[in-house]
Amino acid sequence: MAQQNMEQCINNCLECYRVCLETISYCLEKGGKHAEAGHIKTLMDCVETCNMSANFMIRGSEIHAKTCGVCAEACRRCAEECEKMADDAQMQKCAEVCRRCAESCEEMSSSAASA
Amino acid sequence: MAQQNMEQCINNCLECYRVCLETISYCLEKGGKHAEAGHIKTLMDCVETCNMSANFMIRGSEIHAKTCGVCAEACRRCAEECEKMADDAQMQKCAEVCRRCAESCEEMSSSAASA
Amino acid sequence: MAQQNMEQCINNCLECYRVCLETISYCLEKGGKHAEAGHIKTLMDCVETCNMSANFMIRGSEIHAKTCGVCAEACRRCAEECEKMADDAQMQKCAEVCRRCAESCEEMSSSAASA
Amino acid sequence: MAQQNMEQCINNCLECYRVCLETISYCLEKGGKHAEAGHIKTLMDCVETCNMSANFMIRGSEIHAKTCGVCAEACRRCAEECEKMADDAQMQKCAEVCRRCAESCEEMSSSAASA
Repeated sequence: MAQQNMEQCINNCLECYRVCLETISYCLEKGGKHAEAGHIKTLMDCVETCNMSANFMIRGSEIHAKTCGVCAEACRRCAEECEKMADDAQMQKCAEVCRRCAESCEEMSSSAASA
Repeated sequence: MAQQNMEQCINNCLECYRVCLETISYCLEKGGKHAEAGHIKTLMDCVETCNMSANFMIRGSEIHAKTCGVCAEACRRCAEECEKMADDAQMQKCAEVCRRCAESCEEMSSSAASA
Repeated sequence: MAQQNMEQCINNCLECYRVCLETISYCLEKGGKHAEAGHIKTLMDCVETCNMSANFMIRGSEIHAKTCGVCAEACRRCAEECEKMADDAQMQKCAEVCRRCAESCEEMSSSAASA
Repeated sequence: MAQQNMEQCINNCLECYRVCLETISYCLEKGGKHAEAGHIKTLMDCVETCNMSANFMIRGSEIHAKTCGVCAEACRRCAEECEKMADDAQMQKCAEVCRRCAESCEEMSSSAASA
C-alpha cells in the first residue's frame, strides 16, 4: 500500500506543478489582483516544490519525506491564496489541485518519518 | 489541432522525464554497463530537457519550438543508448518513451518554426 | 583555451540566471509595465535556459552546444525586453548581464558545433 | 546583517550545487565505489535542494527557511558520504563545500523560524 500511496503522490505532485505553472501564465495575463507579487511568488514556490518532490519520490530518495513536507507547506499556502479568488474557475481548479497535493504530501511526510 | 498536438507533446515530455528519471535509479542499482558515465549522463540530459520543454509549452513561451528542438535531440540520443540494451525490459520501455517524445517534439519544433 | 571559455560561460549563465530571477521579483513588486505577462515570461524563459545551460556544461554533456544555442536565444530576447526600460537601473543591469551571457553562449554554440 | 547572511547563503548554495554536479560526473567516470547508486543519488539530492534553496532566497520567498532546512539535511548527508572517501581530492573538496552550505542553511533555517 505504501508503494501505491507514493505512486498517487507522484501523480498529485506532477498535476499540481503543471496546473500551478499554467495558472501563473493565466494570472499574469489577467493582471490586477491576480498578478500581485505575493500571489505569483506563492505559485512559483508551489511549482518548484512539487517538481522537486516528484523528483525525490521517482528517484526513491531517502529524504523524500522531508521534501514532501516542504511541498505540503507550499501547496497549503498556494491553496489558501487561490481560494481567495474562488469565484474564478481557474483559481478554484488550482486551489483544489493544491489541496489534494498538500494532503498526499503530508501523508507521505508523516508515514515515512514514523517508518 | 495545434492545441491538441501541444497537449499531447506536454504529456509525452512529462512521461519521458519521469521514465528516464526512474531509469537512472534502475541503472545505478544494476551497475556495470548500465551505470557507465556516458549512459547515465545521456539519461540526465533527457530528464532535464524534457522537464524544461514541458515547462515552456505549459507556460506558452514564444520560444517553445527551440526548446522542443533541443529536447528532440536529447530524446533521440537517449533512445539510441537504451536500444543497445533492449534485452532489458526497463531499457526497452525507456527507449520507446524516448522515441515517442522525440517524434512529437520534432513535430512541435518544425510546425512552430514554419508558423 | 576552450576550457577557459567554458568556465567563463558557466559563470555568465549562473550570473544571468540569478539576476533574472531577482529581476522577476523586482518587476512583480513594481507592477504596471514591469509586470506584463510577456515581460515576466521572457525573464522566466531566460532563468530556466541559463540554469539548464550551466548544468549541461558543468556535467560535460555532449550536447551542451545545443543547450547553449537555445540559451543564447532566450538571453537575447530578454536583453531586448529589458533595454526598453533602460531608464531603470535594475533593468539596465539585467540587460547587460543577458547580453554578456548571450554572447558567450553563442560562442560556445558555434565553436562546439564546428569541433 | 540578516541580508548579508542571506547573500552568503545564496553563494554557498550555488557553489555547492555546482561542485556536487561536477562530482557526479567525476564519480561516474571513476566507477566502482564512487559510482554506487546510494552515493550518486545522495549527490543528486544535494544538487537539487541547493539549486532550489538558492531560488527561494533569490526570489525572497516567505518559506525560504523551510527550503533551507531541507537543503541543510541533504548537504549534511552528502558531506558524510564524501568524507568516507576523503583520500580523494575531489571528494574532500565536495565534503568541505557541503559542510559550509549545510551550516549556513541551518543558520538561515533557525533564524527565520524564530523571526
